[in-house]
This record gives sequence, C-alpha cells and structure tokens, in this order.
Amino acid sequence: MPIRWDVREHLSLGWFVVRWLLMIAPVAVLIGSSVAFFLWLLAEATQTRWAHPELVFGLPLAGIFIVWCYHSMGSTAGGGNNLVMEQIHQPGAGIPKRMMPLVLFATVITHLFGGSAGREGTAVQMGGSIAQVFSRPFRLSEEDTRILLTCGVAAGFGAVFGTPLAGAIFALEVLAVGKMRYEALIPCLMASVLGDLVCTAWGIGHTQYQIVAPELHIDAAVAHVSLVLAAKVMLASILFGLAGFLFAEITHALSGLFKKYVTRYWLRPVIGAVVVLGISFLLGTRDYLGLGVGSASGDGISIVNAFSGVGVTPWSWWWKLLLTAITLSSGFKGGEVTPLFFVGATLGAALAGVLGVPVDLLAGIGFIAVFAGATNTPLACTLMGVELFGAQYLEYFAIACFLSYLFSGHSSIYLSQQIAAPKG
Amino acid sequence: MPIRWDVREHLSLGWFVVRWLLMIAPVAVLIGSSVAFFLWLLAEATQTRWAHPELVFGLPLAGIFIVWCYHSMGSTAGGGNNLVMEQIHQPGAGIPKRMMPLVLFATVITHLFGGSAGREGTAVQMGGSIAQVFSRPFRLSEEDTRILLTCGVAAGFGAVFGTPLAGAIFALEVLAVGKMRYEALIPCLMASVLGDLVCTAWGIGHTQYQIVAPELHIDAAVAHVSLVLAAKVMLASILFGLAGFLFAEITHALSGLFKKYVTRYWLRPVIGAVVVLGISFLLGTRDYLGLGVGSASGDGISIVNAFSGVGVTPWSWWWKLLLTAITLSSGFKGGEVTPLFFVGATLGAALAGVLGVPVDLLAGIGFIAVFAGATNTPLACTLMGVELFGAQYLEYFAIACFLSYLFSGHSSIYLSQQIAAPKG
Repeated sequence: MPIRWDVREHLSLGWFVVRWLLMIAPVAVLIGSSVAFFLWLLAEATQTRWAHPELVFGLPLAGIFIVWCYHSMGSTAGGGNNLVMEQIHQPGAGIPKRMMPLVLFATVITHLFGGSAGREGTAVQMGGSIAQVFSRPFRLSEEDTRILLTCGVAAGFGAVFGTPLAGAIFALEVLAVGKMRYEALIPCLMASVLGDLVCTAWGIGHTQYQIVAPELHIDAAVAHVSLVLAAKVMLASILFGLAGFLFAEITHALSGLFKKYVTRYWLRPVIGAVVVLGISFLLGTRDYLGLGVGSASGDGISIVNAFSGVGVTPWSWWWKLLLTAITLSSGFKGGEVTPLFFVGATLGAALAGVLGVPVDLLAGIGFIAVFAGATNTPLACTLMGVELFGAQYLEYFAIACFLSYLFSGHSSIYLSQQIAAPKG
Repeated sequence: MPIRWDVREHLSLGWFVVRWLLMIAPVAVLIGSSVAFFLWLLAEATQTRWAHPELVFGLPLAGIFIVWCYHSMGSTAGGGNNLVMEQIHQPGAGIPKRMMPLVLFATVITHLFGGSAGREGTAVQMGGSIAQVFSRPFRLSEEDTRILLTCGVAAGFGAVFGTPLAGAIFALEVLAVGKMRYEALIPCLMASVLGDLVCTAWGIGHTQYQIVAPELHIDAAVAHVSLVLAAKVMLASILFGLAGFLFAEITHALSGLFKKYVTRYWLRPVIGAVVVLGISFLLGTRDYLGLGVGSASGDGISIVNAFSGVGVTPWSWWWKLLLTAITLSSGFKGGEVTPLFFVGATLGAALAGVLGVPVDLLAGIGFIAVFAGATNTPLACTLMGVELFGAQYLEYFAIACFLSYLFSGHSSIYLSQQIAAPKG
C-alpha cells in the first residue's frame, strides 16, 4: 500500500523531544529551585513584615536602594518582563545574568517593606535570565534560543503558581495578542512540568483555593452551562476586562508621569512609597500592602478571604489596583499577576451579592479573568482556573476569560506584547 | 491623569459581542437541533442494527445508494469537511445547502447497515452548511463569513460530543497546524455553548465516561505529575501519535487506490462493504462495525468497555482503524473522530497492562490523544479530556495530546488543513 512514511521524519521528531528534554532538564531544575528559594524568601519577608509592622516606614529608603541598584548595576535588567519578551521576539543582546539576583532581591525587599506587588514578573524574569545563560553552551540557533527563553518563562510561571499547564500556555500566548504558535509547545510543557516538580520537591506548597458554590447544587464533574448564570458571568466579565484595562493603563500612565516630572530617579520610589503608605493610613488598613494572598490578622482583606467575601468592600479592588500601580510604576519590583488576582477576586466578591452569584464562584472567576484581560492570555487563564479550582466551572471560566480578554481592549501590562490580530 | 481611553473602542467591542450573539443565536439553535435529531437517528439506527443483525448484508447496496446520491445530486457536497475548511480559509462558492441533509442521511444509512464510521464529520458539515445559509441574509463581509462558518464547526462539534469548550477550540485549532488565531474565539464559544445547550434541551444525553484509577490513590482535584507515570504516558503517546498518523495515511492511500483502480464509482462501496464484512466475519465479531461507543452484547469490544479493558485484544485498535479507513475511503459517510476514540481507547487499554498504568486512565488518555494526533488539535483534545473525564489527570492529558500531536508528523485526516508551522 503506498503509504507515505518517511522514517527519518519520525526519528527527527523523536530526536526533537530527546534533545529538548536533555537541554531543558538542567534549566528547569535551576529555575524550579530558584523559584522555590524566591517563594521561601517571600513568605519569610511577608511574615517578618506582619510581625514588625513598623518595617513599612522603611519603604521609601528600600525604594531608593532598589532603584539605585538597578541604576548603578542594572545594565538592561530594568527592562524586566518586556526585555524577556523582546529577546524572544528578536534575540539580540540577550537577557543579562544579573537580572536574576537583582529582581529576586528587589522583589523580596519590596515585599519586606510593604510595597504592593506580585511575584510572576520575578519568576518570569528569573526563568528568562537562567534560560539565557544556557543558550551559549548549548550553541543554539536563533530559533532555538527563542524556544529556550520561552521555556524559561513557562518554567518560572508554572513553578511560581504551581500551575504547569497554565505556565506553558501562558508563555506561548503572552507573546502576541490574538495568535498562538506551537513551535515551543512541547518544550514549554516539559519545562513547566519539571520546574513545578522541582519547586514542589523543595517543600514549597501553594495556597489551596476552593470553589464549592453549594447554592448551585451541581454534582457533575463539569457543570452544564445555565443561561442565567452565564449571562451574569458575562456581565461581570465585562467589568473584569475593564479592570484589567484600567490596571494596565494606570500603570503605564503613572510610569510616564514619574519619568516626566520626577527627574531625580531615586526620588520616584520615595514619592511612590509615601503615597502608598499615606493611602493605607487613610484607609486604615495595611491589607493592600504586600502580596495580598493572606492578611496579617487572618480576617483582613485578602485573596483567600475574598472566596468567602470576608472583609471585602465594594472598592477593595480599586485600592489594590491603585496601590500596585503606584508601587510598580515608581520603581519597586515584583509581578503584577498576584495583585491582579486580588483585584479580580475582590471585585468578583463585591459583585457576587449584586448579581446573585455564589461569592466563591465569582471571586474565583474574577481571580483568573482580570488577569486574562490585563495580559491577553485567555486560554492560559482558563486552564489556570482548572488547575487552581478544579473543572466543575470550566465553561464559566472560559466564558469569563474570553470576554475579559475582549474587553481589556488593546491594552496590556506588557508593552512588548505584539498585536497579531485586532480584537472585535 | 493621561489615561488612553477611547470610549468608542469599548462600545465597538460591546457591539461585537451583541452583534455576534444575535447572529449566532438562530444559527446555533438550528445546529443544536439538527445535531440532536442526528444523534437520535443514529441511536435508532444502531439499536435497529443490533436488533436485526442481518441488516449488515445490505451494506453493499446501501453504499451504492449513498455514492449514487452524492454523484447525482451532491454538487460539491462530497468535499465534506475539507470543503468546509476551504470555505473558511478562502470563502468562495460556499457550502451547498444540500450538504446538510445528504451527510445526515448518508451517515445514518452507513451506521444502519454496519459501516464503521463516526459522527463528528457529519456534525461539522451540518454546522458549516447551516451557518453558510445565514451568511447571505446577514450580508456578511468575507472576514465575517469566515467567522460564521468557524462558528458552525464549533457548534456542530460542541453539540455532537457535549463538549462546548473543546468544540470552540477545535474549530479554531483545526484550520492550520501549529498556529491558532483568536478572531473567532468569542463567537465560537458562544456558538458551541448554545449549540450544546439546545442539543441537550432536546433530551439528548451523552455517554458518561469515568477515569477513577483507584490504584493511584490521588485525591487532589488536579493530580501533581509523577515522573514515572509521565514517562509511561509519554511512551504510550508516541504510539498514540503513530496510530493517528497511520489512520490518516491509510485512509488517504485507500482513497487513492479506489479512485485509481476502481473506475466505476458505485463499485467502490461494494468492494469496501464486502471487505469490511469479510474481515468482520473472519474476526468473528461485529463489534468493529458502526459507531463503537457501545456493543450489541454489552460485553463486546467498545469504547465504554475499553475503560475496564473488557473484550479488548492487543489488535482491537488496528481492526477498528482498518475497517474505518476502508468504510470511509470507499464512499460511505460519517466522521472519523469516534472511531479514533475507539482506536485510542482500545490501544490505551492494551498498553495499560504492559506499562503498568491503570486501564481506565490509559484508555481515557488514548481516547483523546489519538484524535489529537490525527487532527492536529492538541489543545482542543486536552480540554475535551477535562470536559469528558474531569480535571484530575489534566497534566497527563496535556502531555499525551501534545506528544501525540508531535508524533503524528505532518499527517492529518483533513487534507485542507494548512501547515502554519512545521513540527519539531
């Protein structure tokens, strides 16, 4: 029978897997271990700040130290996530090695002194920076260097959140709005699975969230869509998308203002710190400082508590959004994603009562959907929803992430994200 | 604060959603209803054949009738799935209205008389054909026609398998190997969710599968990857990919042989039918005829039984693959996907003992992975795994579907699928 089979094609596909597995193993082990170290340091920093609330008064000085480090020895490392993405789009001078220790310690210092920031940016930059180190000894072509750097992003993201599949798809999806290419699909999955495994093997656990929504009486493994609930989720998702849009635009606008009007670079984080602390004192809570996964008192406003609505006010999402935008645009370091989780979960919790949706369900949906909008990664966020909350509300996750992606418009927290296809 | 906000952009995004919701609602209702009718007819046909086994002797005549219908009044409808994909790539003469009744009844007749075939091709073609009807009254641009046809595919696929998210992603992913574009993301999800809802509202249920794998003692909502199990799944997935490759290549090769050596078109299904029946009689089982989800005796070889390994022989996958390739290439109608589920589930069940993997787990993984390989839709199949089997083994689903996608090489059951990026 004239079957077209070229055995060399399959041998070359096999070699592709083996080759990438061999190259990625050391990279992923290093990234997973670094992320484990980072998460451990971050937890220590948060606990220390909770135990010593007076540390927040050091925030302005901490900011000066961070921007001085980047100014005096940062080279191109200040480019952050955007530099990583640019080097994937068009490998050039590469990601400097120093990016890894710089972003690691700058993030931990930001958190120790109460800046409002996240961690995925740090993990992604550590991943990219570590992956870059290997591109020379492996003598990679330009195309393979792009794949390896993408793998670094996948491993960093997968390990920091304990969501390997979301990590792999995020790395592919974040590069360009409206298009995903599959060249790095398998290397990325191997990298993020390994990175997550290694991080977990170091004893690092991830926060467990649960969506139960007993009011809905759903016992199917994956709930069938109800039109009424879907309509409510769609309404909420428009707001989730707008929140993502707002976060990206305010951050960019503030960065611009700081650069334009505060010419002394070391003064920017001082102003940022004073404003962040001032708003916190006016609000009478420190729950918007730091990562926000938990809160010092246990019953404060936090991502975990948003799932039961504890402590959430109608404007919690806005204050976290604003404080994070100020923190990051004034020169502090850290990611945007965990604050986006906070914004989404508290906005979801606040909308739950208005819309008549179980609070844990809408908090969980907001958690992933605001992130999907701000980063333009709807599929990664849908999968993250499954990895964090299980599959029961999968269809709603998809509806929310896709719509939020649409309604964030052509904004993005990543300025180096390309627009491959216009939305709408 | 200089925030870049153009309210018209968001109004236009809102209008995008409303406009597509309004257009898609009637299309999806019609597609969901047609698919419900088709599934009901299919179940009746299968029950009738099981009750009257002598019907299989009518298979040659049924084949003549089918190819005569297509020959005398089929116009371009014989192009099937490939025509639908071509009209999405490059809207031209369109999909003829007659495709819908033709493929519906030809598929039911194929199943009534015992041809080995599936149903997704039928649903996709009905979806495409119904969507096409609306492109004129809606006065759609070329770009919008492409989106509407893609929605037809999504709704057909989502409704026929009861997997709306997989349906939406399948429709986007199947168009080109190695690339996915998002223009139709939200319309497709709306179409497939609505199509599935309508189909279910007609009282049509879908087969429930379960992966329990009690041997693994996993109680997490999403299992952490174990390296040993991942390695076993990777090995199996290479074979799943090769099975997908084999199915595509044998079907194409047989089609070529039939066209070249059997110049009387009506003789092709006669030969096909005789060979299919002959092999069945030699094997002493009719379990490879028809859809294969269940079996006449209840304890025969079937997709459902593969999850407990009942009846599965080491070569079950091969016989189903061969009989389906012969059935479809000789002119009978139906889809390829349910037979691919059968091939994957029985191959997985056969490998489970050898590899020491729980049989339900590897049957479920094979179910989605062979399909991922043969159609080059790894993300849709990963999501389908979650929609059918729950999220507990999500990471393994992804590993299997991605690897099978790689190892099917540049083959595809759809000749009109474009290759956007080479694999490996």
